[in-house]
Amino acid sequence: MLEAVERKIEQYIADLGDPDARMLYARLPHGKRLRARLILTIAGTSLPAVKTAAIVEMIHAASLLHDDVLDDAYVRRGHPSINAAFDNKTAIMFGDVLYSKGFLELNDIGREVAKVISEAVVRLSLGERNDILLAERFNTDRDAYLNMIDQKTAALIQASAEAAALLSGKDRNIYRTYGRNLGLAFQMIDDLLDITEDAATLGKPAMHDFAEGKTTLPYIYLHEALNEAGRDRLVALHGRPLRPADEQWIRTEMEKHHAIDRSRNEARRLITEAVELMEQAGETSLEAIARSMIERSF
Amino acid sequence: MLEAVERKIEQYIADLGDPDARMLYARLPHGKRLRARLILTIAGTSLPAVKTAAIVEMIHAASLLHDDVLDDAYVRRGHPSINAAFDNKTAIMFGDVLYSKGFLELNDIGREVAKVISEAVVRLSLGERNDILLAERFNTDRDAYLNMIDQKTAALIQASAEAAALLSGKDRNIYRTYGRNLGLAFQMIDDLLDITEDAATLGKPAMHDFAEGKTTLPYIYLHEALNEAGRDRLVALHGRPLRPADEQWIRTEMEKHHAIDRSRNEARRLITEAVELMEQAGETSLEAIARSMIERSF
Repeated sequence: MLEAVERKIEQYIADLGDPDARMLYARLPHGKRLRARLILTIAGTSLPAVKTAAIVEMIHAASLLHDDVLDDAYVRRGHPSINAAFDNKTAIMFGDVLYSKGFLELNDIGREVAKVISEAVVRLSLGERNDILLAERFNTDRDAYLNMIDQKTAALIQASAEAAALLSGKDRNIYRTYGRNLGLAFQMIDDLLDITEDAATLGKPAMHDFAEGKTTLPYIYLHEALNEAGRDRLVALHGRPLRPADEQWIRTEMEKHHAIDRSRNEARRLITEAVELMEQAGETSLEAIARSMIERSF
Repeated sequence: MLEAVERKIEQYIADLGDPDARMLYARLPHGKRLRARLILTIAGTSLPAVKTAAIVEMIHAASLLHDDVLDDAYVRRGHPSINAAFDNKTAIMFGDVLYSKGFLELNDIGREVAKVISEAVVRLSLGERNDILLAERFNTDRDAYLNMIDQKTAALIQASAEAAALLSGKDRNIYRTYGRNLGLAFQMIDDLLDITEDAATLGKPAMHDFAEGKTTLPYIYLHEALNEAGRDRLVALHGRPLRPADEQWIRTEMEKHHAIDRSRNEARRLITEAVELMEQAGETSLEAIARSMIERSF
């Protein structure tokens, strides 16, 4: 089912008539194509659905290219990222090419879908900026974190579900909520895996978020639970490379204070809500997508 | 006349509901607003024309933000660029915000205009990449240079003129050609000023292009005209900071071999052609815009 989407993206890239762009695209990992799967599962495999899925995946790839520059991330899915294999300039520019080609092709789909997707990209861009700003100090504000992941991750997943509902004449609001919950839970799980999994499983360095200054939910909950001395130690470790002993200390303390469980339960609640919405709508395959979100290790 | 455009951009920025984005926008120089002037001169000051002008200027500002990162440029119009005053990350992300908000608002204008503008942004992004790729070695291929500036600079100016013609029911092809000629000449003159003017006039370092590896028309013509020893010297200086004596040598040789005049004449020919097109179309104010292009010093 995703094959049609891959072919469509390749066609969009070929349209550019630029050998360099084709070379760069060939080096991008395809990833899970979660957004495309979501769109096709909701809207079926009509040509507009396949095009929308291809466009959203191109936009998502563009955002990752810029994100890896913003995060100084040099590995993605076990391979050097474009900014590492080439340089930041290449990643920025190729991101711009994918973004703009995506927007260009949106004109072909229909005004409502185009608005939903491009609105999400605005929020996604603001979210990437807010992710960086929040990381300047040890953020303990859970709402600020939730608002940021709502922009950075949930916006495009939510828009994918909503656009697919529009394309297939389904109730946009239900799918919008479903997509938002999925997106929030997806990011929460991603943030958990950064702590619980090792580099080999992740295909990138473990515990990179905290070294980058990002205090995801488990860090916020741990900070809440620690006494003053513990808090001071935790805050002192923020935003710099962790020594193995400090990594171990953080993991042990998180275990002790149930910071991971509390975060995972929060993601689970969002998924349960999403599954219930889909049960009501009689969409059984969307239950599976939602559940796969919290039962993954990378 | 441009006041309405400034207000519209400010409104688009305010729409974002993001204080950080508002702060960053306030720090951006407004520039000449050439593209907005072009659109309003062709299409009048109807709301769709003002909106299109505002969107195009936001997209142009986004491209400059990314361009300054790509070019390691730290000064723009006499002020520190965003990448210098903040960092590359801020410039990348704020560029993404301006791009995506621009694309979002395009949905409001009409499908043909949206296609023309977003197609130009694809070419602009490819052009910025090709600008970097061409600079990797001493490029002597005039056609490769022309194709690159066609993408990087002419595409959006051409699209501005074409979109304005669409909005006002004028012949899109005439305005498209006019805009393309203007854009090519604009970039050629920009490239000349980098050589002929000093840093104080430019509001940025002089002869920066060559240090960045960019062989603009005068360098290509000089290379053609020099004997072998001269060529070797010129090529050896390529892509690194120039000492004052080498700067002086390049200027003297360009003078001797008429490399500047030859380039300026090429820009003039394009402008003359554009002016003739507008005479035929009875658009007197567009003649003035075209002429102002080659009679500027910054």
